[in-house]
Amino acid sequence: MSRTRVAIINVTGYIGIDLARILLRHPEVDLVCVTGRSAAGKRLSEVFPHMEGSGLTIRAEFDVPADVVFSAMPHKASAEACMPLVAQGLKVIDVSADFRLKSRQEYESWYDVQHPCPELLDVAVYGLPEVHREGIRAATLVANPGCYPTGAILALAPALAGGLVEGDIIVDSKSGVSGAGRSLTLTTHFAECNESVAAYAVGGHRHLPEIRQECKRLSDRVTELLFLPHLIPMTRGILSSCYAKASEQWLSTAGDPNQSLMEHYREFYRSSPFVKVVAAPPATKHVWGSNFCHVYPTYDKRTGRLLLISAIDNLVKGGAGQAVQNMNLMLGFDESCGLNSLPVYP
Amino acid sequence: MSRTRVAIINVTGYIGIDLARILLRHPEVDLVCVTGRSAAGKRLSEVFPHMEGSGLTIRAEFDVPADVVFSAMPHKASAEACMPLVAQGLKVIDVSADFRLKSRQEYESWYDVQHPCPELLDVAVYGLPEVHREGIRAATLVANPGCYPTGAILALAPALAGGLVEGDIIVDSKSGVSGAGRSLTLTTHFAECNESVAAYAVGGHRHLPEIRQECKRLSDRVTELLFLPHLIPMTRGILSSCYAKASEQWLSTAGDPNQSLMEHYREFYRSSPFVKVVAAPPATKHVWGSNFCHVYPTYDKRTGRLLLISAIDNLVKGGAGQAVQNMNLMLGFDESCGLNSLPVYP
Amino acid sequence: MSRTRVAIINVTGYIGIDLARILLRHPEVDLVCVTGRSAAGKRLSEVFPHMEGSGLTIRAEFDVPADVVFSAMPHKASAEACMPLVAQGLKVIDVSADFRLKSRQEYESWYDVQHPCPELLDVAVYGLPEVHREGIRAATLVANPGCYPTGAILALAPALAGGLVEGDIIVDSKSGVSGAGRSLTLTTHFAECNESVAAYAVGGHRHLPEIRQECKRLSDRVTELLFLPHLIPMTRGILSSCYAKASEQWLSTAGDPNQSLMEHYREFYRSSPFVKVVAAPPATKHVWGSNFCHVYPTYDKRTGRLLLISAIDNLVKGGAGQAVQNMNLMLGFDESCGLNSLPVYP
Amino acid sequence: MSRTRVAIINVTGYIGIDLARILLRHPEVDLVCVTGRSAAGKRLSEVFPHMEGSGLTIRAEFDVPADVVFSAMPHKASAEACMPLVAQGLKVIDVSADFRLKSRQEYESWYDVQHPCPELLDVAVYGLPEVHREGIRAATLVANPGCYPTGAILALAPALAGGLVEGDIIVDSKSGVSGAGRSLTLTTHFAECNESVAAYAVGGHRHLPEIRQECKRLSDRVTELLFLPHLIPMTRGILSSCYAKASEQWLSTAGDPNQSLMEHYREFYRSSPFVKVVAAPPATKHVWGSNFCHVYPTYDKRTGRLLLISAIDNLVKGGAGQAVQNMNLMLGFDESCGLNSLPVYP
Repeated sequence: MSRTRVAIINVTGYIGIDLARILLRHPEVDLVCVTGRSAAGKRLSEVFPHMEGSGLTIRAEFDVPADVVFSAMPHKASAEACMPLVAQGLKVIDVSADFRLKSRQEYESWYDVQHPCPELLDVAVYGLPEVHREGIRAATLVANPGCYPTGAILALAPALAGGLVEGDIIVDSKSGVSGAGRSLTLTTHFAECNESVAAYAVGGHRHLPEIRQECKRLSDRVTELLFLPHLIPMTRGILSSCYAKASEQWLSTAGDPNQSLMEHYREFYRSSPFVKVVAAPPATKHVWGSNFCHVYPTYDKRTGRLLLISAIDNLVKGGAGQAVQNMNLMLGFDESCGLNSLPVYP
Repeated sequence: MSRTRVAIINVTGYIGIDLARILLRHPEVDLVCVTGRSAAGKRLSEVFPHMEGSGLTIRAEFDVPADVVFSAMPHKASAEACMPLVAQGLKVIDVSADFRLKSRQEYESWYDVQHPCPELLDVAVYGLPEVHREGIRAATLVANPGCYPTGAILALAPALAGGLVEGDIIVDSKSGVSGAGRSLTLTTHFAECNESVAAYAVGGHRHLPEIRQECKRLSDRVTELLFLPHLIPMTRGILSSCYAKASEQWLSTAGDPNQSLMEHYREFYRSSPFVKVVAAPPATKHVWGSNFCHVYPTYDKRTGRLLLISAIDNLVKGGAGQAVQNMNLMLGFDESCGLNSLPVYP
Repeated sequence: MSRTRVAIINVTGYIGIDLARILLRHPEVDLVCVTGRSAAGKRLSEVFPHMEGSGLTIRAEFDVPADVVFSAMPHKASAEACMPLVAQGLKVIDVSADFRLKSRQEYESWYDVQHPCPELLDVAVYGLPEVHREGIRAATLVANPGCYPTGAILALAPALAGGLVEGDIIVDSKSGVSGAGRSLTLTTHFAECNESVAAYAVGGHRHLPEIRQECKRLSDRVTELLFLPHLIPMTRGILSSCYAKASEQWLSTAGDPNQSLMEHYREFYRSSPFVKVVAAPPATKHVWGSNFCHVYPTYDKRTGRLLLISAIDNLVKGGAGQAVQNMNLMLGFDESCGLNSLPVYP
Repeated sequence: MSRTRVAIINVTGYIGIDLARILLRHPEVDLVCVTGRSAAGKRLSEVFPHMEGSGLTIRAEFDVPADVVFSAMPHKASAEACMPLVAQGLKVIDVSADFRLKSRQEYESWYDVQHPCPELLDVAVYGLPEVHREGIRAATLVANPGCYPTGAILALAPALAGGLVEGDIIVDSKSGVSGAGRSLTLTTHFAECNESVAAYAVGGHRHLPEIRQECKRLSDRVTELLFLPHLIPMTRGILSSCYAKASEQWLSTAGDPNQSLMEHYREFYRSSPFVKVVAAPPATKHVWGSNFCHVYPTYDKRTGRLLLISAIDNLVKGGAGQAVQNMNLMLGFDESCGLNSLPVYP
């Protein structure tokens, strides 16, 4: 039987190149094509010296037969690139934001563009395996989640799905700088962001509607959701501290809330190989370079809030790794195939 | 007229040595004594090479005549050291936690020791000049605030004092590693905390009762306060993101909430030289090495919450600088005397 | 056929735990035992949360049947631990310094201890595969090189072996902080070493005799070798900038020195899967988390010196990865088995 | 008597804005004008929030009466800007490279432009006060040294001037990223340079001829000079490790070389308030944010080389601070006026 051929459209961003890193070592697929207009014609290792020896050359266009395509184009351009591929029957995993929001209106309002193919919004499956595993298995088009939503939803999902929380939720996230991408900005200039921390997108970050959409799908008791991202001086990682009111109903039946909470979380993620429910507050270093997510749930008896904290590598579980996890599900491979590298510590 | 003589008890921690840095350049005082038991007899510059040329030698005990004493001892030991000095009529500024909490019970429960001199709790003034300026001017004993409380209260005070908020408050703070002190721990070992972020003291940090005490003094509408600190990979700085419910009363009269909020904050801090109400989310780098605090207030119309964000240098406004600011007030100097260095950027 | 069983003595340091990370994913071996006295009895993941799910428990002693043992004990204790294992006929890879120096006298003078088993110094093979590959294949006891020597020798070896250089050599190395180990020191306290760089061991670093020994084995034209290490604020990586006088003989025959140099280096490392001779100055980030070494040789016509620069990950090629590479050679596996993860960038 | 009025042409780079930080607190001068074409018309604090409260507005052109002008323009443009100011008799301090090299030919060859006013090359004084103090006092036009030359020459000058060294010199420097300026480049993008170190300008850095010129002026025994700069992941600071052969003559008369060396260095810098000859290897953190330079000289008996190590803050002693020190000398102020802030540690 011939091996699965995969392609990456736009390999030159951080998620694109991390996809290449993972796929080049994936035992079941061959990376046959990587594209990137600005660097077309160059050897991959010329642009990315850590790829020395990969043998790949960056192509201007996706023009090689493949079975699975990852699109890492910017939004709108990505939908335009994916549309014909879906039509051809290829398996497509879009790491842009184009197919994440189910509401065309929300998409167009937050991204300030017209959606090129709104008819695909219902076809696409939101690619968070721990929540939509079965849908992904059957999907042709997967919308790979944003980095912040991955961390936030994995922290919140068990509590939401189990009716443990109600009322408003606050998500305060801290991200490494690679999350801002490879394009040059003053904000990501070393001397500006090193030895500093700041909140940004205070008026509303584009990942807010995505987190809200998935939270609402998991629970109808959530009233409002506030999400505030912060940039901190490290390269990789997102820590999300989520504050959610414990529901009266759950509290009245929980017995020891902390024990009950921990058991509920462990049960929820029992069959998810990449989410570890841990017994102490996680550090992003504990998942560095890996597809793992560490989740720590605790109950704050002083305020009646649940503190739900998650740590991920924003480019792996929050990007390229999760995309490969989705591919594994779509192709019927073992979910963790090619993704079982342990975190690099320290 | 003879110049004011000042002393630092326990100069060998980060706040102690930053006090020395500031006091050695203060135009109105002479630093006549620095103590440190473990390094007694050594030249200050031998232990702290950046002090090359200071001419100071570390003494075992405070045994030189002085007018003002800063105690940077650990808690309990600090109260024991301050007690006789207060009795002698010296002006004392304690940078430990010993005189911050008005309730002996709270102190003893959070710090798990007996208070050596509870009778001084009412004598001491909480040294946050922007809130207790007049009290500090008249004080003999000042309790210099903790670093987190400084950032949190400066972010919240105008909203609390003006009745802008009600209900629960969440304070999510991100601190540089110097806040954890100079004692060696695995948590502050470079390879462990670099390229990582984590929450800590999830069960309750000792600065929580301090923040709560001051918030309750400013407003009786606060129901619950949740405070979660995080360690991030930088040396100096604290960013506090505070989430507080806007009060119905204020909203009904505010007109444009964001404009009204900004004006209220500017008015509140009009006479405070070190607090700048800024028009964009602050970064800790904007106050690095200085006694300034940048505060950014905004109203989130989606959730009805106020987002109140502050940035300080944890060792200056959150420690040594504020202590000198307090000294200036106690001695009738200009509040910003010796403290007007601009932040070092980038 | 039964699989190879491997053990790690003293898993609790940075090289020990990185050995665990690699060996747990090595396709040909089973990690059957990890020891660590201070943490004996604890689950590995309790001490190292990134190992969540490994299933290993730290043992007090090495007391489980194994075929290959890695000793990551401190020097002297390591020799004492290895001695009986070698006697039993196990394959032993010592990552301490105990068997690296051929001269007992040099060892005892630099490490200031008596060597527990000097008779093994001749038995041990210096485990730098790119230089001693055949010896390692046949070895029972391998002395895994120090991190600095790995980088320095890989930069210099082709020039030395080919007679390209003569006279004195200066090696100026810059290391990430993990190289200083997991034991707590003020030097490696985050607030002390972040945002700072300093030289250390100016009077002579213990890796100097090791570099000198291997350089002299490769060429008798080297007169003096000066090695100065620096600590820089990053977690992993060593960059070594080596300055060596081009030999008159080589210059007179080289034609275009830079082209000739590059070809000579490429030829020298043709069969070494982990050393990449690159066409631009390497960055340690290009090898982060991997067993690769990037080497960049160039000729400075102004001064007649060769600039030979190498980049490695100090814990992988400079430690755990190289140890596994040695194991692969000793056991007849493919040299890169279990080591082909690509560098994690950015 | 009216106070001295000073202006900064091009305040928007890192040296320009650090000049503003220092000059705004200088007791003897008034900063009356700051220019910056791209940000003309904006409040200074809008572009640089740490300047909140400065009251300055960025002007398009220098069009306000002033007595002293600092030009922080790029090379060539800077000479063009300085030319008319010198003609008008203003005191001018140029922080660009335009007047540093005495040889027009060298300048034009390294900078690849025609010099706009070569006739001023002899008028300009090289602004390293510790070497050219008297010349600077009398100067109208001062060429403020480059950051690397400042560190390298201060490390080498006493040895060169005293005939302690001969033969070739190697200068290996490690710089923080702010040295690369505020313009956006991939090299200074946080995710690219954090957790990494690399050499650059391997073919020859523009500061090489500058270091060489000053070394040759100090000693005619220097044969060749090799200079290699490295970028390391910190914001501020340069550490220069200089390797120079001890002269036979000095060695034959030195007695204890290390003691003699230390005494010679101390004597050389006896009247220089900003250079501290220290007794242990310096760290850049020891001078962070200050105008101090720490120099550590030692003799390596194994190789007969002197190791001469210096640490500076690249933007202060290596830029803005030194420029103000030059101004102080030109105007007859105390050399350290406005510059005596202690380093910010940690």
